[in-house]
Amino acid sequence: MSVPAGQHTVRRHNLALVLREVAGPEPLSRAGVAARTGLTRGTVSSLVEELIAAGLVAELAAERGGPGRPASPLRLDPSGPAGLGLEVGVEAVGACVVDLSGAVRAHRTTASDHRDDAPDAALARLASLAVDVMAEAALPIAGATVAIPGVIGPDGVLERAPNLPRWVDVDVGSALSERLGGLPVRAGNEADLAALAERWAGGPADAIVVSGGIGVGAGILLGGALFPGAGGRAGEIGHVVVDPDGPACHCGGRGCLETVAGLEALAGGDADAVRAAGRALGIALTGAVHLLDVPAVVLGGDYPGCGPPLLEAVRAELAARVFSRAGVDVRFSALGPDAALRGAATAVVQAVLADPGRLIVGNGVRATGSPS
Amino acid sequence: MSVPAGQHTVRRHNLALVLREVAGPEPLSRAGVAARTGLTRGTVSSLVEELIAAGLVAELAAERGGPGRPASPLRLDPSGPAGLGLEVGVEAVGACVVDLSGAVRAHRTTASDHRDDAPDAALARLASLAVDVMAEAALPIAGATVAIPGVIGPDGVLERAPNLPRWVDVDVGSALSERLGGLPVRAGNEADLAALAERWAGGPADAIVVSGGIGVGAGILLGGALFPGAGGRAGEIGHVVVDPDGPACHCGGRGCLETVAGLEALAGGDADAVRAAGRALGIALTGAVHLLDVPAVVLGGDYPGCGPPLLEAVRAELAARVFSRAGVDVRFSALGPDAALRGAATAVVQAVLADPGRLIVGNGVRATGSPS
Repeated sequence: MSVPAGQHTVRRHNLALVLREVAGPEPLSRAGVAARTGLTRGTVSSLVEELIAAGLVAELAAERGGPGRPASPLRLDPSGPAGLGLEVGVEAVGACVVDLSGAVRAHRTTASDHRDDAPDAALARLASLAVDVMAEAALPIAGATVAIPGVIGPDGVLERAPNLPRWVDVDVGSALSERLGGLPVRAGNEADLAALAERWAGGPADAIVVSGGIGVGAGILLGGALFPGAGGRAGEIGHVVVDPDGPACHCGGRGCLETVAGLEALAGGDADAVRAAGRALGIALTGAVHLLDVPAVVLGGDYPGCGPPLLEAVRAELAARVFSRAGVDVRFSALGPDAALRGAATAVVQAVLADPGRLIVGNGVRATGSPS
Repeated sequence: MSVPAGQHTVRRHNLALVLREVAGPEPLSRAGVAARTGLTRGTVSSLVEELIAAGLVAELAAERGGPGRPASPLRLDPSGPAGLGLEVGVEAVGACVVDLSGAVRAHRTTASDHRDDAPDAALARLASLAVDVMAEAALPIAGATVAIPGVIGPDGVLERAPNLPRWVDVDVGSALSERLGGLPVRAGNEADLAALAERWAGGPADAIVVSGGIGVGAGILLGGALFPGAGGRAGEIGHVVVDPDGPACHCGGRGCLETVAGLEALAGGDADAVRAAGRALGIALTGAVHLLDVPAVVLGGDYPGCGPPLLEAVRAELAARVFSRAGVDVRFSALGPDAALRGAATAVVQAVLADPGRLIVGNGVRATGSPS
């Protein structure tokens, strides 16, 4: 659907421009926004009114900053449209609500093993958890993203999740949307959402973000954005071969990284298993760094819990094998094992901030998809 | 350097537009170009005159195609500015000239082993070969690209070539330019140029193009263009680890693909070596396909000479290990071991076709970089 490049488009663009300034680190008044955007004060005021009416922006009490009328600093409205993050893990479900300012307003996870489950039971549990966190947060919800440890096609349908063998060709987004009264729900790969969370928390713009759990995946960040590969399913580092004659993998292959560096292999927790996992990660990452020419690696999910010996083993392997002159920066994620869940909720918030016009109907701006 | 968006820019854009139509598969007259571009006949005629004067377009004898004045079909001028391709191999140097229409007009290679050489001797040999092919082709030369089996930084300087240990931090482009009277010479990675040649010969838009020789490299095509990775050095598949405890590699690592699937490992030519190389390629490509989500692999360089057993071994390994539903299309390149050399020459021609205004000074269009 092409939008005519007229006044509606310009206004929509300017709404985003103003909101981006309000979301910036510095508190700005309307005059400050006008100065930074080059828009007139009149235009800024009208756009700000619209953003306030939509619950996206709040105006704080006026401060006297200098001569003239007092300036009222603007900020993102923490009671405005929030993002719902959902996660189907192999051994848990999770839900959280992140408000416009990025703060987590409600967060719950429940252990439940889905390895032998059909999707229905897990989705029912997850929908019920979603209702709980939405009630707890008591905020308007703009939409949801669900993180899944599997391969998601360009149409948003889960094609396959090696550790959830009964989840084949499941439209998880639609199934959850139905259970949540039609709330828009998009599905995303767990590792991709964890990588975005890493970036939104100030992480490196170019990095391989490995998410370690029962399954092992990665989100590849290039220039601050997710690298989709040719078909949108890039980053399946868990199935890079590290031991060609090694143990069988759930995926049908043999000697995949996941068989040595997944949580099941690490379950014993002894030093040898951690060293073997670190070595395997280093071998797989050597290939990834040579193929993608990426200067940084972030180890997330459950890996930080393995402690320094894992990090040291990965670093040693990369130092011995990668011939890039600059070396590879390897670090643990600071976000904890819920990075993907937070990323899922924040993805909704980021979409609102990037295009607030989508939420605002009337007054010259149409909601996307509404009949024109 | 920003260009003012004025008449010069529009004219330069339109020159490229007209030339693209002339370069198309269908022979077009001026009227045909006008119909396809939406430009007026007067504008097209003036642009065509400019392109003819620059030696880029030729007008064939008029044909009577219907009522009215006879139409003269236009075509790229095969006597116009051509591209010089150069190649430094581990065991050879090569040079060729490709004309505007894509035809190879002169081509020579000379065996010479550079493993123990400092760059100077090889560059002198290559420059002399370049002079020979330019004399043979007797065409104006728009520029040159030199293919090198090594890592080239964003500044065009060769950082390192694992199989040419004395070639460290060499500005090969400038060194050759000096020896060739100031002709502009750019350096490119050998596998990247072979991948582009594959694409320009009608190959798949999304593919990993592996170039097998003494060294093993790959050019990664996404959406028809080279994927540079974060730092411009993507595609070093030869140093993906296929046997963690395997033999030492020239790169300093151990068990790299190159140690099993490089020409030195294949030199015996016996069936077992070919099968082992195919298996190793399949293992490395499994990782690459999972990381990049690319649906096709082209095996080029010296690999087609290994025959069907190599292809079958690679296909079997990928079929057993890759969990992509669509599978991976694996084929041999039809371009022969000189693909990189042809790609190097064609890269120059493609740059001329993409922006002919760069070559044309005066008459409203300035050459890039000329004082304004």
